[in-house]
Amino acid sequence: MSSATVSGVRLASVAAGIRYQGRDDLVLVALPSGARTAAVFTRNAFCAAPVVVAREHLAQAGPRIWLINAGNANAGTGERGLADARSSCEAVARLAGCAPEEVLPFSTGVIGEYLPVDRLTASLSGALAALDEDGWAAAARAIMTTDTVPKLASRRFMVGGREATVTGIAKGAGMIRPDMATMLAFLATDAAVSPARLQHLLRGAVEQTFNCITIDGDTSTNDACVLCAAGTLGNDPIDGRDSAEEKALSDAVTAVCDELATAIVRDGEGATKLVRVEVSDASSPLEARKVAETIAHSPLVKTALFASDPNWGRILAAVGRAGIDGLDIGRVRIWLDDALIVSGGGRDAGYTEAAGRRVMQQPSFAIRVSLGRGGARAHVLTCDLSYDYVRINAEYRT
Amino acid sequence: MSSATVSGVRLASVAAGIRYQGRDDLVLVALPSGARTAAVFTRNAFCAAPVVVAREHLAQAGPRIWLINAGNANAGTGERGLADARSSCEAVARLAGCAPEEVLPFSTGVIGEYLPVDRLTASLSGALAALDEDGWAAAARAIMTTDTVPKLASRRFMVGGREATVTGIAKGAGMIRPDMATMLAFLATDAAVSPARLQHLLRGAVEQTFNCITIDGDTSTNDACVLCAAGTLGNDPIDGRDSAEEKALSDAVTAVCDELATAIVRDGEGATKLVRVEVSDASSPLEARKVAETIAHSPLVKTALFASDPNWGRILAAVGRAGIDGLDIGRVRIWLDDALIVSGGGRDAGYTEAAGRRVMQQPSFAIRVSLGRGGARAHVLTCDLSYDYVRINAEYRT
Repeated sequence: MSSATVSGVRLASVAAGIRYQGRDDLVLVALPSGARTAAVFTRNAFCAAPVVVAREHLAQAGPRIWLINAGNANAGTGERGLADARSSCEAVARLAGCAPEEVLPFSTGVIGEYLPVDRLTASLSGALAALDEDGWAAAARAIMTTDTVPKLASRRFMVGGREATVTGIAKGAGMIRPDMATMLAFLATDAAVSPARLQHLLRGAVEQTFNCITIDGDTSTNDACVLCAAGTLGNDPIDGRDSAEEKALSDAVTAVCDELATAIVRDGEGATKLVRVEVSDASSPLEARKVAETIAHSPLVKTALFASDPNWGRILAAVGRAGIDGLDIGRVRIWLDDALIVSGGGRDAGYTEAAGRRVMQQPSFAIRVSLGRGGARAHVLTCDLSYDYVRINAEYRT
Repeated sequence: MSSATVSGVRLASVAAGIRYQGRDDLVLVALPSGARTAAVFTRNAFCAAPVVVAREHLAQAGPRIWLINAGNANAGTGERGLADARSSCEAVARLAGCAPEEVLPFSTGVIGEYLPVDRLTASLSGALAALDEDGWAAAARAIMTTDTVPKLASRRFMVGGREATVTGIAKGAGMIRPDMATMLAFLATDAAVSPARLQHLLRGAVEQTFNCITIDGDTSTNDACVLCAAGTLGNDPIDGRDSAEEKALSDAVTAVCDELATAIVRDGEGATKLVRVEVSDASSPLEARKVAETIAHSPLVKTALFASDPNWGRILAAVGRAGIDGLDIGRVRIWLDDALIVSGGGRDAGYTEAAGRRVMQQPSFAIRVSLGRGGARAHVLTCDLSYDYVRINAEYRT
C-alpha cells in the first residue's frame, strides 16, 4: 500500500482494547505543520460528543492530530461524554506537544456507553511512537466495526507539473448496527490547498458520493468525513485561480470518495446486490433526488432486489408516491440497465419478464427512470434488503 | 354479524375467479336511492384505473353500487385498464338498471395484469340476486388478498333520539405484497348526512386513523376509503347545525376507522408486534408527525422491535435525523410505555435494560417521545420488521 502514501501524513494503529480484543481499534493520524483540514459532519441533531468537540476545535485551530477509536461511539453520553472526548484530546496533546484544540476526536461503535478513557490514554504513547507514512492500510482495518472488508482508495493527479496523491480510508456498513454507529472517512492529499477551497471541494465531493448512498436510510450520530491538505508537495496553494488544477484535485478527491462510498454500499449489512438508481429528465436536481431516494429506500423495492424479481409495479409505485407535483405518468419510462420495462403508464409492450430477470440476477445493475419533465438528474447507490439485514440488526447487542 | 347491519345497504360476495379459486373475490354493495357517498383516494401519482374512473363517476352522479374485486388491481394497465374499468361499470349498470356513472369500481391485487372482464361480468347477475343486508362479514372476507384475517368493525351512536349504526370493512396487510396492492375500506351508516359534512368528516377520520399507520412506508396505487350515508334512519340530515349529532357520528366513524386501521397493522406482513409511536410537546402537529413517522419507518427501530431489544440509541438517532430545526436534545425524553429511557441527551439515570426489555417483550406497547418544545402531538401505529416480512416480499409472485 506504499503507493497510497501521502508525504508528511503519518498514521499509527494500536490495540487499545476499547471494546474488541486482539485487534487494533485506535488510530492516530499526524499532520505536518501548515496542513489544512476540511470537515463535513452528520446532520443528525443528536450528534455525538466527539462531533461536538471536533467542531469546537476546528473553529479554534488547525488540526495536527486526528484521534480515532472504534468500538465505542461516545454518543448519547451527555456531559460526561463531552468531558471524556476533551480529556482524550488533552492526553494526546500532552504527549505530542501540541495544543488540545489541535486534536480532532472521532469515535464509532456502541451508543450510550462511556468511553474507557483510561484504556485509550494508556495506548497513546505506543501509538505516537509507531506513526508512519505507510500506515494507511492498517488504519483502514483498525477503524472497522461491522465492516467485513477494509476500505482504502487512492488517486494521482497533476498540479504545477508535479504528481500529487490523494488517499482515503472509510468505514461503514449500514448506518447503525446494534448500536454500532457511523460512516467515517479520512482523506489526505500532499497538495497545498487554500482552506476555503478545500472545504468547498470536500463538501461538493461528499454531496456527490457519500450523500448518494443508502443502506437503510438511517443516518448516525457520528458521521464525519475529513480531508487534509498536507502541503508537502511544494506547490503554490490551489485557491481557485487556476481552475484546471482545482478540477484535477476535485476529480481525484471525488473519485476516492466515490470508490469508498461504493465499497460501503457493497459491504452493506446483509447486502447481496449493489444497485445504482438513476433518475433523469427531471425538472430540478432536487426532484430527481427525491424520486431516486424514494426508490432506493423502499423496502418493497429492496426485497424485490433481494429476490431478483423484476417487480416493476413496485418501482412504478415508488415513483408515484415521491411527491412530485403534476407528474404525468404517461411520460415516465423505467429501465433495468437497458431493458425498458415501463412506458405509457404501464408495462412496455416490448418488455419480457425474462429480460428483466436477466438484468436483476447480476450482482450489480442500474434502475433507470426518466421523468420526461426537464433536463435535471440525480443518482443514489443502494443495496437489497435480505434476511441477513434483519438477522444482523435484530441480533442482541454483543 | 347481523348486529352490523346498516338498514338499506345490501351486500353480495361471489366467486368470480378473478385470480383465486375456491373463494369469493367479487363484492357488490348496493346503496338505497338518496344515499350519499364520500371518498378519499390514494395520493400516489400512479393511481390505478378504477381510482381514475371512480373519481370521474363521483363527480357526475351519486353512487348506487360499489363494485369491488380482489386479485387484480387493474393498475399499470394504461388505456386498456381504463376501458376495462368503464366496461365493468357498464355491465353492472345494465343488469341493475342504473347509469354507469352510478357505479364506483375498486380493485386490489396484482399490478400490471389486465382485468379479466369476461369472468367479472359473468358473475354479476348471481351477485345482484344475492344482495343482502347481512352480507358484511362475507364481504370482509371476499376483499382479502394477503390479509390473514377479515377486518370488520361497527359502532352505534344516537342521532335525533334514534340509534344509528356505522359499519365498515377493510383489507390491507402491508401496502403492496408481490404486486398485491392496496388498503381499501368501505363504511356505511344508516344516518342521513349532508354531502359536504360527510366528506369533511370522512377526511378527518382518515387523517387520524388510516393515515396514521405504517407497515413499510409504501403507499399503493389503489388505496381508497369510502363512506356511505344511506339516510334510511329517517333523521334530519346532519349538516353541522347540531354539532352534538355531528360529533356523535364523527366519533363513531373515527372509532370504526381506528379499529380497522389497527387491525391492518396487526395483520402487517410478518408483523409480530403492534407499536404506537406517540410524540408530544412538539411546536406543531406537523413536527410531531414528522418525528413519529421517522421513528415508525426506521428499519433499525423496526428490527429492534422484532428482537424485543430496548435499543434506545436507535430511537434517539431517529429523533435526531427527523429534520427538526433547533431541536434541543437536552429536553428530549423517551419512554417505552412508562419506563423513561432517555433524558438529558442520553440514557436516563434511572433506566435499566431489564425495565426496557420487559416492555418490549409485550405484543403491543408504546414508544413515547416528548420534544419539550410546545403543546402539539401526533401518533403513528407501526409494526416490527421480521424475517417473515422479507420472506413474504421476496417470494416470487405466485
